[in-house]
Amino acid sequence: MELWYTEKQTENMGLSLKVRNVLHRETTPYQELAVLDTLQYGRMLVLDGMVQTTEKDEYVYHEMITHVALYTHPNPRRAAVIGGGDGGAVREILKHPSIEKVVLAEIDAGVIEAARSYLPNISSALDDPRVEIMVGDGIAHIKAWRNAYDIVIIDSTEPVGAAVGLFSQDFYRSIDEALTEDGILVAQTESPYVNASLIEQSFRYIQGVFPISRLYLTCVPTYPTGLWSFSLGSKKHDPLQVDFGARQMVPTVYYNSDVHRAAFALPNFVRRLIGDLEEAAR
Amino acid sequence: MELWYTEKQTENMGLSLKVRNVLHRETTPYQELAVLDTLQYGRMLVLDGMVQTTEKDEYVYHEMITHVALYTHPNPRRAAVIGGGDGGAVREILKHPSIEKVVLAEIDAGVIEAARSYLPNISSALDDPRVEIMVGDGIAHIKAWRNAYDIVIIDSTEPVGAAVGLFSQDFYRSIDEALTEDGILVAQTESPYVNASLIEQSFRYIQGVFPISRLYLTCVPTYPTGLWSFSLGSKKHDPLQVDFGARQMVPTVYYNSDVHRAAFALPNFVRRLIGDLEEAAR
Repeated sequence: MELWYTEKQTENMGLSLKVRNVLHRETTPYQELAVLDTLQYGRMLVLDGMVQTTEKDEYVYHEMITHVALYTHPNPRRAAVIGGGDGGAVREILKHPSIEKVVLAEIDAGVIEAARSYLPNISSALDDPRVEIMVGDGIAHIKAWRNAYDIVIIDSTEPVGAAVGLFSQDFYRSIDEALTEDGILVAQTESPYVNASLIEQSFRYIQGVFPISRLYLTCVPTYPTGLWSFSLGSKKHDPLQVDFGARQMVPTVYYNSDVHRAAFALPNFVRRLIGDLEEAAR
Repeated sequence: MELWYTEKQTENMGLSLKVRNVLHRETTPYQELAVLDTLQYGRMLVLDGMVQTTEKDEYVYHEMITHVALYTHPNPRRAAVIGGGDGGAVREILKHPSIEKVVLAEIDAGVIEAARSYLPNISSALDDPRVEIMVGDGIAHIKAWRNAYDIVIIDSTEPVGAAVGLFSQDFYRSIDEALTEDGILVAQTESPYVNASLIEQSFRYIQGVFPISRLYLTCVPTYPTGLWSFSLGSKKHDPLQVDFGARQMVPTVYYNSDVHRAAFALPNFVRRLIGDLEEAAR
Protein backbone atom coordinates (compact mmCIF):
# COMPACT_ATOMS: atom_id res chain seq x y z
CA MET A 1 0.00 0.00 0.00
CA GLU A 2 1.22 3.50 -0.83
CA LEU A 3 0.06 6.06 1.69
CA TRP A 4 0.36 9.72 0.65
CA TYR A 5 -0.30 12.89 2.61
CA THR A 6 -1.11 16.06 0.67
CA GLU A 7 -1.05 19.47 2.31
CA LYS A 8 -3.28 21.77 0.32
CA GLN A 9 -0.93 24.75 0.71
CA THR A 10 -3.42 26.94 -1.13
CA GLU A 11 -6.78 26.14 -2.75
CA ASN A 12 -4.86 25.35 -5.93
CA MET A 13 -1.54 23.84 -4.84
CA GLY A 14 -0.39 20.99 -2.66
CA LEU A 15 2.74 19.30 -1.32
CA SER A 16 2.40 15.51 -1.46
CA LEU A 17 4.59 13.24 0.66
CA LYS A 18 4.76 9.47 0.81
CA VAL A 19 4.06 8.33 4.36
CA ARG A 20 5.62 5.32 6.07
CA ASN A 21 3.34 5.57 9.05
CA VAL A 22 1.04 7.84 11.01
CA LEU A 23 2.80 7.94 14.37
CA HIS A 24 0.35 10.10 16.29
CA ARG A 25 -2.91 11.89 15.81
CA GLU A 26 -5.02 13.86 18.26
CA THR A 27 -7.35 16.81 18.51
CA THR A 28 -5.98 19.17 21.16
CA PRO A 29 -8.08 22.03 22.56
CA TYR A 30 -6.45 24.26 19.94
CA GLN A 31 -5.88 22.27 16.77
CA GLU A 32 -5.65 18.96 14.99
CA LEU A 33 -2.17 17.56 15.60
CA ALA A 34 -0.44 14.76 13.71
CA VAL A 35 3.05 13.30 13.49
CA LEU A 36 3.73 11.52 10.21
CA ASP A 37 6.78 9.49 9.29
CA THR A 38 7.52 10.53 5.69
CA LEU A 39 10.06 8.93 3.38
CA GLN A 40 11.34 12.25 1.97
CA TYR A 41 11.62 14.40 5.08
CA GLY A 42 11.55 11.97 8.00
CA ARG A 43 9.19 12.64 10.86
CA MET A 44 6.92 15.61 10.37
CA LEU A 45 4.68 17.67 12.66
CA VAL A 46 1.38 18.70 11.08
CA LEU A 47 -1.02 21.17 12.73
CA ASP A 48 -4.49 21.71 11.24
CA GLY A 49 -3.26 20.06 8.07
CA MET A 50 -0.22 22.36 7.68
CA VAL A 51 3.37 21.10 7.83
CA GLN A 52 5.13 22.83 10.73
CA THR A 53 8.49 21.13 10.78
CA THR A 54 10.25 18.00 9.53
CA GLU A 55 13.35 16.19 10.76
CA LYS A 56 15.18 16.67 7.45
CA ASP A 57 14.71 20.37 6.73
CA GLU A 58 13.90 21.86 10.15
CA TYR A 59 17.35 23.35 10.54
CA VAL A 60 16.75 25.93 7.80
CA TYR A 61 13.78 27.54 9.50
CA HIS A 62 15.03 27.15 13.08
CA GLU A 63 18.51 28.50 12.36
CA MET A 64 17.21 31.41 10.31
CA ILE A 65 14.48 32.50 12.75
CA THR A 66 17.01 32.67 15.62
CA HIS A 67 20.66 33.28 14.70
CA VAL A 68 20.05 36.43 12.65
CA ALA A 69 18.81 38.23 15.78
CA LEU A 70 21.21 36.44 18.14
CA TYR A 71 24.24 37.60 16.14
CA THR A 72 22.76 41.08 15.66
CA HIS A 73 22.59 41.49 19.45
CA PRO A 74 26.10 41.79 20.91
CA ASN A 75 25.32 39.97 24.15
CA PRO A 76 21.95 38.18 24.18
CA ARG A 77 21.21 36.85 27.66
CA ARG A 78 17.43 36.39 27.93
CA ALA A 79 15.16 35.25 25.12
CA ALA A 80 11.50 34.37 24.69
CA VAL A 81 9.96 32.16 22.04
CA ILE A 82 6.23 32.65 21.42
CA GLY A 83 4.82 29.47 19.86
CA GLY A 84 7.57 27.13 18.73
CA GLY A 85 6.48 24.28 21.01
CA ASP A 86 8.53 21.80 18.97
CA GLY A 87 11.63 23.26 20.65
CA GLY A 88 13.69 23.86 17.50
CA ALA A 89 14.08 27.60 18.01
CA VAL A 90 14.93 27.06 21.70
CA ARG A 91 17.63 24.55 20.72
CA GLU A 92 19.28 27.07 18.39
CA ILE A 93 19.09 29.93 20.92
CA LEU A 94 20.82 27.77 23.57
CA LYS A 95 23.82 27.29 21.29
CA HIS A 96 24.85 30.85 22.16
CA PRO A 97 27.03 30.82 25.29
CA SER A 98 25.78 34.22 26.51
CA ILE A 99 22.21 32.90 26.90
CA GLU A 100 21.12 32.59 30.55
CA LYS A 101 17.39 32.02 30.13
CA VAL A 102 14.93 31.06 27.40
CA VAL A 103 11.19 31.24 28.07
CA LEU A 104 9.03 29.15 25.77
CA ALA A 105 5.43 30.40 25.72
CA GLU A 106 3.40 27.77 23.86
CA ILE A 107 -0.38 27.75 24.07
CA ASP A 108 -0.78 24.05 23.19
CA ALA A 109 0.79 21.52 25.58
CA GLY A 110 0.00 18.85 22.98
CA VAL A 111 2.64 20.27 20.64
CA ILE A 112 5.33 20.11 23.32
CA GLU A 113 4.36 16.57 24.29
CA ALA A 114 4.27 15.34 20.70
CA ALA A 115 7.68 16.91 20.00
CA ARG A 116 9.15 15.32 23.14
CA SER A 117 7.77 11.92 22.16
CA TYR A 118 8.38 11.87 18.43
CA LEU A 119 10.89 14.58 17.49
CA PRO A 120 13.73 14.19 20.03
CA ASN A 121 16.34 15.88 17.80
CA ILE A 122 14.20 18.98 17.59
CA SER A 123 12.87 19.04 21.17
CA SER A 124 15.97 17.85 23.06
CA ALA A 125 16.94 21.27 24.36
CA LEU A 126 13.63 21.72 26.17
CA ASP A 127 15.18 19.89 29.12
CA ASP A 128 18.06 22.35 29.39
CA PRO A 129 18.06 24.00 32.85
CA ARG A 130 18.10 27.45 31.22
CA VAL A 131 14.64 26.79 29.68
CA GLU A 132 11.37 27.79 31.34
CA ILE A 133 8.28 26.37 29.69
CA MET A 134 5.10 28.42 30.05
CA VAL A 135 2.05 26.63 28.66
CA GLY A 136 -0.41 29.39 27.97
CA ASP A 137 -1.18 32.55 26.07
CA GLY A 138 2.02 34.11 24.72
CA ILE A 139 0.29 37.45 24.29
CA ALA A 140 -0.69 37.62 27.98
CA HIS A 141 2.81 36.50 28.98
CA ILE A 142 4.49 39.25 26.96
CA LYS A 143 2.05 41.90 28.26
CA ALA A 144 3.05 41.02 31.84
CA TRP A 145 6.74 41.83 31.35
CA ARG A 146 8.81 45.03 31.01
CA ASN A 147 12.47 45.28 30.02
CA ALA A 148 12.80 41.51 30.38
CA TYR A 149 14.09 40.07 27.10
CA ASP A 150 16.97 40.80 24.75
CA ILE A 151 15.34 38.70 22.03
CA VAL A 152 11.71 37.77 21.32
CA ILE A 153 11.00 35.23 18.57
CA ILE A 154 7.45 34.79 17.25
CA ASP A 155 7.55 31.22 15.96
CA SER A 156 3.86 30.98 15.10
CA THR A 157 1.61 28.95 12.85
CA GLU A 158 -0.25 30.65 10.01
CA PRO A 159 -2.44 33.58 11.12
CA VAL A 160 -5.51 31.48 11.76
CA GLY A 161 -7.16 30.45 15.05
CA ALA A 162 -5.10 31.12 18.17
CA ALA A 163 -2.26 32.66 16.12
CA VAL A 164 -4.19 35.67 14.71
CA GLY A 165 -3.25 37.97 17.61
CA LEU A 166 0.44 37.18 17.09
CA PHE A 167 0.37 39.26 13.89
CA SER A 168 -1.26 42.36 15.43
CA GLN A 169 0.38 45.74 15.96
CA ASP A 170 -0.85 45.71 19.54
CA PHE A 171 1.23 42.58 20.17
CA TYR A 172 4.30 44.14 18.54
CA ARG A 173 3.88 47.13 20.89
CA SER A 174 3.73 44.78 23.90
CA ILE A 175 6.90 43.08 22.71
CA ASP A 176 8.59 46.47 22.38
CA GLU A 177 7.86 47.01 26.09
CA ALA A 178 8.90 43.50 27.11
CA LEU A 179 12.26 43.95 25.35
CA THR A 180 15.33 45.50 26.94
CA GLU A 181 16.53 48.87 25.64
CA ASP A 182 18.53 47.23 22.85
CA GLY A 183 16.20 44.27 22.29
CA ILE A 184 15.24 42.61 19.00
CA LEU A 185 12.03 41.01 17.71
CA VAL A 186 11.87 38.43 14.91
CA ALA A 187 8.56 37.12 13.56
CA GLN A 188 7.97 34.52 10.87
CA THR A 189 5.80 36.28 8.29
CA GLU A 190 4.99 33.64 5.62
CA SER A 191 5.64 33.57 1.85
CA PRO A 192 5.90 36.65 -0.40
CA TYR A 193 4.16 34.69 -3.15
CA VAL A 194 1.03 33.56 -1.32
CA ASN A 195 0.89 35.87 1.74
CA ALA A 196 1.96 39.20 0.24
CA SER A 197 -0.63 41.30 2.06
CA LEU A 198 0.23 39.71 5.42
CA ILE A 199 3.91 40.61 4.97
CA GLU A 200 3.00 44.13 3.87
CA GLN A 201 0.85 44.61 6.97
CA SER A 202 3.13 42.92 9.54
CA PHE A 203 6.16 44.76 8.26
CA ARG A 204 4.35 48.11 8.34
CA TYR A 205 3.26 47.42 11.92
CA ILE A 206 6.82 46.57 12.98
CA GLN A 207 8.12 49.66 11.16
CA GLY A 208 5.63 51.69 13.20
CA VAL A 209 6.97 50.35 16.49
CA PHE A 210 10.73 49.81 16.08
CA PRO A 211 13.37 52.33 14.94
CA ILE A 212 15.11 49.65 12.84
CA SER A 213 12.99 47.25 10.75
CA ARG A 214 14.22 44.74 8.19
CA LEU A 215 12.67 41.95 6.17
CA TYR A 216 14.75 38.89 5.38
CA LEU A 217 14.22 35.70 3.39
CA THR A 218 15.23 32.09 3.28
CA CYS A 219 14.17 29.00 1.34
CA VAL A 220 12.32 26.28 3.32
CA PRO A 221 11.59 23.18 1.17
CA THR A 222 8.41 22.10 2.96
CA TYR A 223 6.72 25.52 3.18
CA PRO A 224 4.40 26.87 0.45
CA THR A 225 6.49 28.21 -2.51
CA GLY A 226 9.70 27.62 -0.53
CA LEU A 227 10.50 31.33 -0.21
CA TRP A 228 9.89 32.35 3.40
CA SER A 229 10.02 35.74 5.11
CA PHE A 230 10.98 36.94 8.58
CA SER A 231 10.32 40.45 9.87
CA LEU A 232 12.83 41.91 12.31
CA GLY A 233 12.34 44.92 14.56
CA SER A 234 15.27 46.26 16.55
CA LYS A 235 15.64 49.12 19.04
CA LYS A 236 19.35 49.75 18.53
CA HIS A 237 21.36 47.10 16.65
CA ASP A 238 21.14 46.86 12.87
CA PRO A 239 21.36 43.31 11.47
CA LEU A 240 23.18 44.75 8.45
CA GLN A 241 26.00 46.07 10.69
CA VAL A 242 27.06 42.95 12.60
CA ASP A 243 30.74 42.58 13.50
CA PHE A 244 31.13 38.83 13.04
CA GLY A 245 34.87 39.06 13.66
CA ALA A 246 34.19 39.58 17.35
CA ARG A 247 31.94 36.52 17.64
CA GLN A 248 32.41 32.78 17.83
CA MET A 249 30.29 31.01 15.21
CA VAL A 250 28.02 28.33 16.70
CA PRO A 251 27.70 24.99 14.86
CA THR A 252 25.02 25.17 12.16
CA VAL A 253 23.95 23.28 9.05
CA TYR A 254 22.62 26.28 7.14
CA TYR A 255 23.38 29.66 8.75
CA ASN A 256 26.70 31.47 8.49
CA SER A 257 27.77 35.12 8.37
CA ASP A 258 27.48 35.28 4.56
CA VAL A 259 24.00 33.73 4.66
CA HIS A 260 23.07 36.29 7.36
CA ARG A 261 23.98 39.24 5.14
CA ALA A 262 22.57 37.66 1.98
CA ALA A 263 19.17 37.02 3.58
CA PHE A 264 18.48 40.77 3.53
CA ALA A 265 19.03 41.07 -0.25
CA LEU A 266 15.42 41.19 -1.44
CA PRO A 267 14.19 40.48 -4.97
CA ASN A 268 12.59 43.51 -6.65
CA PHE A 269 9.03 42.20 -6.23
CA VAL A 270 9.59 41.80 -2.48
CA ARG A 271 11.14 45.27 -2.20
CA ARG A 272 8.03 46.71 -3.82
CA LEU A 273 5.90 44.78 -1.34
CA ILE A 274 7.43 46.61 1.63
CA GLY A 275 7.52 50.01 -0.09
CA ASP A 276 11.24 49.89 -0.80
CA LEU A 277 10.66 51.19 -4.33
CA GLU A 278 13.55 53.60 -4.65
CA GLU A 279 15.97 50.80 -3.78
CA ALA A 280 14.33 48.53 -6.34
CA ALA A 281 14.70 51.15 -9.08
CA ARG A 282 18.49 51.40 -8.63
CA MET B 1 -14.82 18.25 -11.64
CA GLU B 2 -11.50 18.98 -9.95
CA LEU B 3 -8.54 18.10 -12.14
CA TRP B 4 -5.16 17.88 -10.40
CA TYR B 5 -1.70 17.30 -11.83
CA THR B 6 0.98 15.88 -9.54
CA GLU B 7 4.65 15.94 -10.47
CA LYS B 8 6.39 13.18 -8.59
CA GLN B 9 9.49 15.28 -7.94
CA THR B 10 11.15 12.30 -6.25
CA GLU B 11 9.87 8.82 -5.51
CA ASN B 12 8.56 10.16 -2.20
CA MET B 13 7.48 13.74 -2.88
CA GLY B 14 5.18 15.53 -5.28
CA LEU B 15 3.95 18.98 -6.26
CA SER B 16 0.19 18.98 -6.89
CA LEU B 17 -1.49 21.70 -8.91
CA LYS B 18 -5.15 22.22 -9.72
CA VAL B 19 -5.59 22.31 -13.49
CA ARG B 20 -8.12 24.44 -15.36
CA ASN B 21 -7.43 22.74 -18.66
CA VAL B 22 -4.94 20.62 -20.58
CA LEU B 23 -4.06 22.96 -23.46
CA HIS B 24 -1.70 20.72 -25.39
CA ARG B 25 -0.22 17.27 -25.25
CA GLU B 26 2.08 15.48 -27.67
CA THR B 27 4.89 12.98 -27.84
CA THR B 28 7.80 14.59 -29.66
CA PRO B 29 10.77 12.55 -30.91
CA TYR B 30 12.51 13.47 -27.65
CA GLN B 31 9.95 13.60 -24.87
CA GLU B 32 6.38 13.80 -23.71
CA LEU B 33 5.32 17.44 -23.85
CA ALA B 34 2.30 19.05 -22.20
CA VAL B 35 1.02 22.55 -21.57
CA LEU B 36 -1.35 22.78 -18.61
CA ASP B 37 -3.34 25.77 -17.49
CA THR B 38 -3.01 25.75 -13.69
CA LEU B 39 -4.88 27.95 -11.25
CA GLN B 40 -1.85 28.62 -9.04
CA TYR B 41 0.88 29.29 -11.59
CA GLY B 42 -0.93 29.99 -14.87
CA ARG B 43 0.18 28.13 -17.95
CA MET B 44 2.86 25.55 -17.36
CA LEU B 45 5.22 23.62 -19.65
CA VAL B 46 5.74 19.99 -18.57
CA LEU B 47 8.36 17.72 -20.19
CA ASP B 48 8.41 14.01 -19.35
CA GLY B 49 6.23 14.78 -16.35
CA MET B 50 8.56 17.47 -14.96
CA VAL B 51 7.54 21.13 -14.60
CA GLN B 52 9.91 23.23 -16.74
CA THR B 53 8.43 26.67 -16.45
CA THR B 54 5.22 28.45 -15.46
CA GLU B 55 3.86 31.87 -16.38
CA LYS B 56 3.77 33.02 -12.75
CA ASP B 57 7.22 32.08 -11.47
CA GLU B 58 9.30 31.78 -14.66
CA TYR B 59 11.04 35.10 -14.07
CA VAL B 60 12.98 33.78 -11.07
CA TYR B 61 14.74 31.03 -13.01
CA HIS B 62 15.13 32.96 -16.27
CA GLU B 63 16.50 36.11 -14.65
CA MET B 64 18.88 34.19 -12.39
CA ILE B 65 20.27 31.87 -15.09
CA THR B 66 21.14 34.87 -17.33
CA HIS B 67 21.75 38.21 -15.61
CA VAL B 68 24.39 36.96 -13.18
CA ALA B 69 26.71 36.15 -16.11
CA LEU B 70 25.56 39.10 -18.24
CA TYR B 71 26.46 41.57 -15.50
CA THR B 72 29.68 39.74 -14.69
CA HIS B 73 30.83 40.22 -18.29
CA PRO B 74 31.61 43.90 -18.96
CA ASN B 75 30.41 43.90 -22.56
CA PRO B 76 28.48 40.75 -23.58
CA ARG B 77 27.81 40.80 -27.33
CA ARG B 78 27.23 37.20 -28.41
CA ALA B 79 25.44 34.55 -26.36
CA ALA B 80 24.30 30.98 -26.84
CA VAL B 81 21.52 29.19 -24.98
CA ILE B 82 21.68 25.38 -25.02
CA GLY B 83 18.19 24.00 -24.39
CA GLY B 84 15.82 26.71 -23.20
CA GLY B 85 13.43 26.30 -26.13
CA ASP B 86 10.71 28.16 -24.23
CA GLY B 87 12.63 31.37 -24.95
CA GLY B 88 12.70 32.76 -21.40
CA ALA B 89 16.49 32.89 -21.14
CA VAL B 90 16.74 34.44 -24.62
CA ARG B 91 14.23 37.14 -23.61
CA GLU B 92 16.32 38.09 -20.57
CA ILE B 93 19.61 38.12 -22.52
CA LEU B 94 18.12 40.48 -25.14
CA LYS B 95 17.36 43.05 -22.44
CA HIS B 96 21.07 43.90 -22.42
CA PRO B 97 21.75 46.61 -25.01
CA SER B 98 25.26 45.30 -25.80
CA ILE B 99 23.87 42.00 -27.13
CA GLU B 100 24.21 41.63 -30.91
CA LYS B 101 23.38 37.96 -31.36
CA VAL B 102 21.78 35.12 -29.38
CA VAL B 103 21.89 31.59 -30.71
CA LEU B 104 19.27 29.23 -29.29
CA ALA B 105 20.29 25.58 -29.74
CA GLU B 106 17.24 23.50 -28.82
CA ILE B 107 17.05 19.85 -29.77
CA ASP B 108 13.25 19.62 -29.69
CA ALA B 109 11.33 21.82 -32.15
CA GLY B 110 8.16 20.82 -30.30
CA VAL B 111 9.23 22.84 -27.25
CA ILE B 112 9.75 25.97 -29.34
CA GLU B 113 6.42 25.53 -31.12
CA ALA B 114 4.51 24.89 -27.90
CA ALA B 115 6.08 27.96 -26.26
CA ARG B 116 5.24 30.12 -29.30
CA SER B 117 1.63 28.89 -29.25
CA TYR B 118 0.88 28.80 -25.54
CA LEU B 119 3.48 30.85 -23.66
CA PRO B 120 3.76 34.12 -25.60
CA ASN B 121 5.09 36.14 -22.65
CA ILE B 122 7.97 33.71 -22.28
CA SER B 123 8.68 33.06 -25.98
CA SER B 124 8.04 36.54 -27.41
CA ALA B 125 11.71 37.44 -27.84
CA LEU B 126 12.33 34.47 -30.15
CA ASP B 127 11.19 36.70 -33.04
CA ASP B 128 13.81 39.36 -32.28
CA PRO B 129 16.10 39.84 -35.31
CA ARG B 130 19.17 39.26 -33.09
CA VAL B 131 18.04 35.66 -32.40
CA GLU B 132 19.17 32.66 -34.46
CA ILE B 133 17.29 29.46 -33.72
CA MET B 134 19.18 26.23 -34.34
CA VAL B 135 16.99 23.16 -33.93
CA GLY B 136 19.42 20.36 -33.25
CA ASP B 137 22.11 18.99 -30.99
CA GLY B 138 23.53 21.74 -28.80
CA ILE B 139 26.64 19.66 -28.08
CA ALA B 140 27.48 19.37 -31.80
CA HIS B 141 26.77 23.07 -32.29
CA ILE B 142 29.14 24.09 -29.51
CA LYS B 143 31.87 21.71 -30.74
CA ALA B 144 31.77 23.42 -34.17
CA TRP B 145 32.68 26.88 -32.83
CA ARG B 146 35.84 28.56 -31.50
CA ASN B 147 36.07 31.93 -29.77
CA ALA B 148 32.47 32.64 -30.75
CA TYR B 149 30.48 33.43 -27.61
CA ASP B 150 30.88 35.76 -24.64
CA ILE B 151 28.20 33.86 -22.72
CA VAL B 152 26.97 30.25 -22.91
CA ILE B 153 23.90 29.29 -20.87
CA ILE B 154 23.02 25.61 -20.38
CA ASP B 155 19.27 25.80 -19.77
CA SER B 156 18.67 22.06 -19.72
CA THR B 157 16.12 19.63 -18.38
CA GLU B 158 17.12 17.13 -15.70
CA PRO B 159 20.11 14.93 -16.65
CA VAL B 160 17.99 12.22 -18.26
CA GLY B 161 17.54 11.32 -21.95
CA ALA B 162 18.92 13.84 -24.43
CA ALA B 163 20.19 16.09 -21.62
CA VAL B 164 22.75 13.67 -20.09
CA GLY B 165 25.62 14.92 -22.27
CA LEU B 166 24.94 18.50 -21.17
CA PHE B 167 26.35 17.64 -17.72
CA SER B 168 29.60 16.05 -18.96
CA GLN B 169 33.11 17.46 -18.53
CA ASP B 170 33.71 16.92 -22.24
CA PHE B 171 30.88 19.35 -22.98
CA TYR B 172 32.25 21.92 -20.54
CA ARG B 173 35.63 21.67 -22.35
CA SER B 174 33.91 22.29 -25.71
CA ILE B 175 32.18 25.32 -24.23
CA ASP B 176 35.53 26.61 -22.98
CA GLU B 177 36.75 26.54 -26.58
CA ALA B 178 33.56 28.06 -27.99
CA LEU B 179 33.83 30.97 -25.56
CA THR B 180 35.83 34.13 -26.20
CA GLU B 181 38.94 34.76 -24.09
CA ASP B 182 36.88 36.35 -21.32
CA GLY B 183 33.76 34.23 -21.79
CA ILE B 184 31.44 32.85 -19.10
CA LEU B 185 29.44 29.61 -18.78
CA VAL B 186 26.36 29.18 -16.59
CA ALA B 187 24.64 25.80 -16.19
CA GLN B 188 21.52 24.97 -14.20
CA THR B 189 22.62 22.21 -11.79
CA GLU B 190 19.47 21.19 -9.87
CA SER B 191 18.70 21.12 -6.13
CA PRO B 192 21.28 20.68 -3.34
CA TYR B 193 18.73 18.65 -1.39
CA VAL B 194 17.81 16.03 -3.99
CA ASN B 195 20.67 16.25 -6.52
CA ALA B 196 23.70 16.73 -4.29
CA SER B 197 25.96 14.32 -6.16
CA LEU B 198 25.11 15.92 -9.51
CA ILE B 199 26.11 19.36 -8.19
CA GLU B 200 29.28 17.95 -6.66
CA GLN B 201 30.26 16.38 -10.00
CA SER B 202 29.23 19.22 -12.33
CA PHE B 203 30.95 21.81 -10.16
CA ARG B 204 34.14 19.73 -9.98
CA TYR B 205 34.12 19.38 -13.77
CA ILE B 206 33.68 23.13 -14.24
CA GLN B 207 36.42 23.80 -11.67
CA GLY B 208 38.67 21.56 -13.74
CA VAL B 209 38.08 23.60 -16.90
CA PHE B 210 37.66 27.26 -15.85
CA PRO B 211 40.06 29.41 -13.78
CA ILE B 212 37.10 30.95 -11.91
CA SER B 213 34.24 28.73 -10.75
CA ARG B 214 31.33 29.69 -8.51
CA LEU B 215 28.12 28.05 -7.37
CA TYR B 216 25.08 30.22 -6.76
CA LEU B 217 21.54 29.62 -5.54
CA THR B 218 18.04 30.91 -5.88
CA CYS B 219 14.58 29.81 -4.78
CA VAL B 220 12.22 28.59 -7.55
CA PRO B 221 8.72 27.78 -6.19
CA THR B 222 7.83 25.07 -8.75
CA TYR B 223 11.13 23.15 -8.67
CA PRO B 224 11.80 20.26 -6.24
CA THR B 225 12.65 21.64 -2.74
CA GLY B 226 12.61 25.21 -4.12
CA LEU B 227 16.36 25.71 -3.59
CA TRP B 228 18.04 25.69 -7.00
CA SER B 229 21.70 25.82 -8.01
CA PHE B 230 23.61 27.27 -10.94
CA SER B 231 27.26 26.56 -11.67
CA LEU B 232 29.30 29.32 -13.26
CA GLY B 233 32.67 28.99 -14.99
CA SER B 234 34.54 32.09 -16.08
CA LYS B 235 37.84 32.66 -17.87
CA LYS B 236 38.55 36.15 -16.53
CA HIS B 237 35.71 38.01 -14.83
CA ASP B 238 34.71 37.13 -11.26
CA PRO B 239 30.96 37.40 -10.52
CA LEU B 240 31.89 38.50 -6.99
CA GLN B 241 33.76 41.55 -8.35
CA VAL B 242 31.14 43.21 -10.55
CA ASP B 243 31.15 47.03 -10.77
CA PHE B 244 27.42 47.67 -10.94
CA GLY B 245 27.96 51.42 -10.77
CA ALA B 246 29.16 51.37 -14.36
CA ARG B 247 26.12 49.48 -15.65
CA GLN B 248 22.51 50.36 -16.41
CA MET B 249 20.16 47.93 -14.65
CA VAL B 250 17.70 46.22 -17.01
CA PRO B 251 14.05 45.88 -15.89
CA THR B 252 13.55 42.74 -13.78
CA VAL B 253 11.03 41.30 -11.34
CA TYR B 254 13.53 39.37 -9.20
CA TYR B 255 17.18 40.10 -10.01
CA ASN B 256 19.08 43.15 -8.77
CA SER B 257 22.68 43.85 -7.77
CA ASP B 258 22.08 42.85 -4.14
CA VAL B 259 20.40 39.59 -5.18
CA HIS B 260 23.38 38.96 -7.50
CA ARG B 261 25.88 39.18 -4.64
CA ALA B 262 23.64 37.35 -2.18
CA ALA B 263 23.14 34.37 -4.51
CA PHE B 264 26.76 33.35 -3.90
CA ALA B 265 26.34 33.16 -0.10
CA LEU B 266 26.04 29.41 0.36
CA PRO B 267 24.58 27.61 3.39
CA ASN B 268 27.13 25.47 5.24
CA PHE B 269 25.75 22.18 3.89
CA VAL B 270 26.11 23.44 0.31
CA ARG B 271 29.65 24.70 0.99
CA ARG B 272 30.56 21.25 2.18
CA LEU B 273 29.06 19.77 -0.97
CA ILE B 274 31.51 21.66 -3.19
CA GLY B 275 34.50 21.14 -0.91
CA ASP B 276 34.46 24.65 0.50
CA LEU B 277 35.02 23.32 4.02
CA GLU B 278 37.47 25.90 5.32
CA GLU B 279 35.03 28.68 4.50
CA ALA B 280 32.23 26.80 6.20
CA ALA B 281 34.28 26.45 9.38
CA ARG B 282 34.82 30.19 9.72
